[in-house]
Amino acid sequence: MPSAIPGFRAVIPAGGAGTRLWPVSRAGAPKFLHDLTGSGRTLLQGTADRLAPLVGDEGLVVVTGERHVDAVRAQVPALGADQVLAEPSPRDSMAAIGLAAAVLAERHGEVVLGSFAADQVVTGQAEFERSVREAVEAARAGYVATIGIAASRPSVAFGYVHGGAPLGVEGSPSAVHVTGFTEKPDAATAREYLSSGEYRWNAGIFVVSTTVLLDHLAQQRPALHDGLRRIAAAWDTPDRDEVVADTWPSLERIAIDHAVAEPVASTGGVAMVPGSFGWDDVGDFNSLAALLPADDDAGSKVLGESADVVRVQSAGSVVVPAGGRVVTLLGIDDVVVVDTPDAVLVTTRARAQQVRRMVDAVRDHGRGDLL
Amino acid sequence: MPSAIPGFRAVIPAGGAGTRLWPVSRAGAPKFLHDLTGSGRTLLQGTADRLAPLVGDEGLVVVTGERHVDAVRAQVPALGADQVLAEPSPRDSMAAIGLAAAVLAERHGEVVLGSFAADQVVTGQAEFERSVREAVEAARAGYVATIGIAASRPSVAFGYVHGGAPLGVEGSPSAVHVTGFTEKPDAATAREYLSSGEYRWNAGIFVVSTTVLLDHLAQQRPALHDGLRRIAAAWDTPDRDEVVADTWPSLERIAIDHAVAEPVASTGGVAMVPGSFGWDDVGDFNSLAALLPADDDAGSKVLGESADVVRVQSAGSVVVPAGGRVVTLLGIDDVVVVDTPDAVLVTTRARAQQVRRMVDAVRDHGRGDLL
Repeated sequence: MPSAIPGFRAVIPAGGAGTRLWPVSRAGAPKFLHDLTGSGRTLLQGTADRLAPLVGDEGLVVVTGERHVDAVRAQVPALGADQVLAEPSPRDSMAAIGLAAAVLAERHGEVVLGSFAADQVVTGQAEFERSVREAVEAARAGYVATIGIAASRPSVAFGYVHGGAPLGVEGSPSAVHVTGFTEKPDAATAREYLSSGEYRWNAGIFVVSTTVLLDHLAQQRPALHDGLRRIAAAWDTPDRDEVVADTWPSLERIAIDHAVAEPVASTGGVAMVPGSFGWDDVGDFNSLAALLPADDDAGSKVLGESADVVRVQSAGSVVVPAGGRVVTLLGIDDVVVVDTPDAVLVTTRARAQQVRRMVDAVRDHGRGDLL
Repeated sequence: MPSAIPGFRAVIPAGGAGTRLWPVSRAGAPKFLHDLTGSGRTLLQGTADRLAPLVGDEGLVVVTGERHVDAVRAQVPALGADQVLAEPSPRDSMAAIGLAAAVLAERHGEVVLGSFAADQVVTGQAEFERSVREAVEAARAGYVATIGIAASRPSVAFGYVHGGAPLGVEGSPSAVHVTGFTEKPDAATAREYLSSGEYRWNAGIFVVSTTVLLDHLAQQRPALHDGLRRIAAAWDTPDRDEVVADTWPSLERIAIDHAVAEPVASTGGVAMVPGSFGWDDVGDFNSLAALLPADDDAGSKVLGESADVVRVQSAGSVVVPAGGRVVTLLGIDDVVVVDTPDAVLVTTRARAQQVRRMVDAVRDHGRGDLL
């Protein structure tokens, strides 16, 4: 096992509702707290497991909502008291990662941090580690480094990174300049991206030194920078609660992509390391299905106990039997059935991306208690 | 309210598993014990309610399996101790109705009995009563009288009765001779039946005097007749259990249609009264849907609480939310979802007739406890 990277810390922003995975993912127990691959580990645990060899248990920091702190500690008991940063309210990824960067800078001076969302799935640990090590070298050279995933299909569910000329940084031989980021494209654009060979999926991984990140933030979003610095200075003091209560609610809500990555890319400050590990954000029940082994020779998938599903003349289904009952399918193909103790969802694989609409409908129906 | 018909008794055979209505209908709580129309009354209660005006509470006899006696008494508390006849094991409809006929003959001498299955749905009480009164007059004239339902579609799920010349019995002006019965036909035959105008659905209702029925049985199935007579003679004595234990297990399993109705029809002894009341045997979840009011303007049906179902862009569904949870449908049409505390069934309206296959599959799966 390779040793941890000196001076490197991993930040895990553990937020996001995972609305398209309702009724498994709920406000009180969002996506990252669930085992969505049948591995026996939740997405958060999988993320911590994957990063531990690179930073050691002491090198992890999780940023999460106050209501999830207990669950995070229960799932990752190796986290020390000061390794979970609780946000009083969601302020999007720039505030979460910026808070971690500012607190790490207070505690340790300049370090390189890598930000890795808590709700993604990676396969190929060795290749993942290799990519992160290259990204850390690019970060040490002053870049905001990202990792771009080889696009295997013209996905309209992911953002893309446009790669340019080689970076030429020692220790980061495959890194290239990033000429720009694009949001989720339409289908025609996604096909163009795929055939051009110049675009990779944006995995939302950022590796950057605390100094570089905070300097960019100070330039791009000075008020947000100043607020985070003020909070970080008080974080490990008796004043934390007071300063957080004063400052946090007024912080700008903005994604790190918009606040830093995109503007800095336009002036040549962002690098991309091509990652060839398997990666998915498990966005919906259809993409979840792609990560599960087939449960029969008709492409049926089960997240949970195979014994809890009975199929007759049904192909291509995705069943999540999480309600303690038996789910039976007769003569119906490509259906998605998600069974939980208080709600059942029935839809199709083709409509799995639209589960958010059901969440809205359940709220309108006066059953916000199920969300 | 019209008065009860003198000398008339109603027999309700309460058997049949209702396999195509699994997982609502179970061996331990079959179809007739459930409210399948949202009326607030179970099919058995609806049957008793419908017959009480014709026979009074004292004129009802229910024949059911030993394991269902307590449930029958709980659902129809008006039944006296001697009005529920318990069968130790299922021996098909001839034994059930023949037992009731023989016991009634022992108790009351010759009476007219009408047999009405416990798991059918009738709408149009006045027309139903009119038809039964005519059938009783035909029975008093010595006929085995049936009621034929106007076929509204070329159903392949029902048997048919072929009507002939008018009967010419006073008090039964619309009755005709029956020239024959047919089992469930194929689709082409069903269409011919419908266009000929000579065929009606066989509702499985038989009205006949105890003497005529038992005489026909003695002629057609002498061993079965003798066994039932022996049991009936002991029924209201201390010897009942012993005689039942000796005799019941060896009784022939045969439907009343084959044992009596068909052979007697061939010699001119069966009459049919055309019934123009609404009738259904609620055979599966699709036919159940036809009995339920629409829950929206897209033809969706709910058996249970409408508040327990949330649909988004889903038309024509049939949902039975009987598991205490909310059932949600997103972008899926004509689906059938039946939710119970220990099993969920997902199928389509078109496949609803094949639910029996799922019952077999669940048994093969080692989960006979769910059946």
